[in-house]
Amino acid sequence: MAGTAGTAGPRLCRRLEGEAARAVLANADTLLFDCDGVLWRGDTAISGAPAALGRLAAAGKRLCYVTNNSGRTRVAYTEKLRRLGFPPAEPRHIFGTAFCAARYLRQALPPGAAAYVLGGPALAAELEAVGIPHLGPGPAALPGPAPADWAKAPLDPAVRAVLVGFDEHFSYAKLCQALRYLLQNPDCLLVGTNRDHRLPLEGGAAIPGTGCLVKAVETAAQREAFIVGKPNRFMFDCVASEFQVDPARTIMVGDRLDTDILMGNSCGLTTLLTLTGVTALDEVQAHLDSDCPARHSLVPDYYVDSIADLLPALGE
Amino acid sequence: MAGTAGTAGPRLCRRLEGEAARAVLANADTLLFDCDGVLWRGDTAISGAPAALGRLAAAGKRLCYVTNNSGRTRVAYTEKLRRLGFPPAEPRHIFGTAFCAARYLRQALPPGAAAYVLGGPALAAELEAVGIPHLGPGPAALPGPAPADWAKAPLDPAVRAVLVGFDEHFSYAKLCQALRYLLQNPDCLLVGTNRDHRLPLEGGAAIPGTGCLVKAVETAAQREAFIVGKPNRFMFDCVASEFQVDPARTIMVGDRLDTDILMGNSCGLTTLLTLTGVTALDEVQAHLDSDCPARHSLVPDYYVDSIADLLPALGE
Repeated sequence: MAGTAGTAGPRLCRRLEGEAARAVLANADTLLFDCDGVLWRGDTAISGAPAALGRLAAAGKRLCYVTNNSGRTRVAYTEKLRRLGFPPAEPRHIFGTAFCAARYLRQALPPGAAAYVLGGPALAAELEAVGIPHLGPGPAALPGPAPADWAKAPLDPAVRAVLVGFDEHFSYAKLCQALRYLLQNPDCLLVGTNRDHRLPLEGGAAIPGTGCLVKAVETAAQREAFIVGKPNRFMFDCVASEFQVDPARTIMVGDRLDTDILMGNSCGLTTLLTLTGVTALDEVQAHLDSDCPARHSLVPDYYVDSIADLLPALGE
Repeated sequence: MAGTAGTAGPRLCRRLEGEAARAVLANADTLLFDCDGVLWRGDTAISGAPAALGRLAAAGKRLCYVTNNSGRTRVAYTEKLRRLGFPPAEPRHIFGTAFCAARYLRQALPPGAAAYVLGGPALAAELEAVGIPHLGPGPAALPGPAPADWAKAPLDPAVRAVLVGFDEHFSYAKLCQALRYLLQNPDCLLVGTNRDHRLPLEGGAAIPGTGCLVKAVETAAQREAFIVGKPNRFMFDCVASEFQVDPARTIMVGDRLDTDILMGNSCGLTTLLTLTGVTALDEVQAHLDSDCPARHSLVPDYYVDSIADLLPALGE
């Protein structure tokens, strides 16, 4: 058990407990945590999760947070972790899609180029932090009663990217402007923070996720967006460019197979599924039983009911 | 040339002119016209189109209008035809997706069931005309600042269908309500008027089409919508249930390959492409040259630069 299961034979989604849990954790320097459904649900910490992360930090592990949520800045995440009793984190340990999207655009855009943003204040703040001018956040109205008016609203000639994140003010008016920027300049980038189709709320309710808005823009533009978030390895590359991380000594902990686990497996990490979020074990079984090789990349190395189950393996 | 080209060998997209034009028209009892890009662009008739339709009507042909646009009622179409100088049409000759969607829901829903509508006044009016209660048209605001509030907005228990048409007031708030209706009741129908991804405007500009909104809802719900409009044969079935039409003696005239021509070919009609709309001849050639059999169903039997080119064949 000294090697990572991720590189030693097929992934079988074994329960991580006892001696195996001690060995897997001993072999890891870095743990990457998805947040919602793993550390907390809404505004409530998963019971035992703060204690488990406290012991991991005390054992000298590097803890990073890798989330597709584009609704919070890095600083806001450090505050939420502190408020819910998790060990202290610095902004540099937080990799949300607002930050990663800004980082991507900083690399991809020429100096002075601006972004038209379907998204909220966090996305705007992270763009500002890397010096990218932006427009779009907040409500927008159609500039007149007729379609001919809509196609005449002013366009900022500096815009060279359309960035789609979570936007509660998403509207036909914004979709229209996004399309016009993309048609006006064939080199205009189309970037989405993630493809999550729903955001689960406490009590089983759900609201539409950013993936719905990305699809609307992609359909209008007839172009595929570059997606910053998991399962794209760009999120892991962001971590790896900030810290010295050895994939073979890194564990990705998440509750979603098609984002967290797929990214972890693609990047050669050890993958650990928690059942406190959106996934039930029978979904994994269906992938394991499938003849389709692509579905095997959705199977984690290990699972736990909750990351609190790691506490015994982290005891004195 | 007495039979229809649609059933006599491969479709080759030949120019319809001279003796062939006279023979094809003589063999037809009914012509189905797409509107925008075929009869008019925006608010301007295609030059010569009213005269061509006038002669077809005088020759005793049945003229029907089959449009994916959900933004006008049947009555509004008859008025537009009259205003632009086309021969008089009755509402029963107009098959728009607002009318056809109402007709579909009238068949599919139990008595008293209501529809949640992403769409405009025309969609609402056609639903009222068939006695389906509806809610949704017009602007909607999110019912509070936090996601937990959004998932608590009241839902009408009578709603058994979500209908997505063109909606300039489309918003995240409406997407959220649509998802909640679809999640609340697994039997709730999801119906879209069409998948057109853009609406072309005069001068080469374009605005997002209903297909973008349908995709957003489908992505949230993770369900495929039933699409009323072309290329679905439901539109032709609506015509055929209103009139005695023989597919072998019917011509579908349109400017879009993936809607007009595909539906016409699927239903065994003779298909005629006009180049006054969104399609150029080289797109047809690419389909003709393709090895993929599915692409051959996008090739029309015939083309004309404009339906005004039929005038000589319709002379005395």
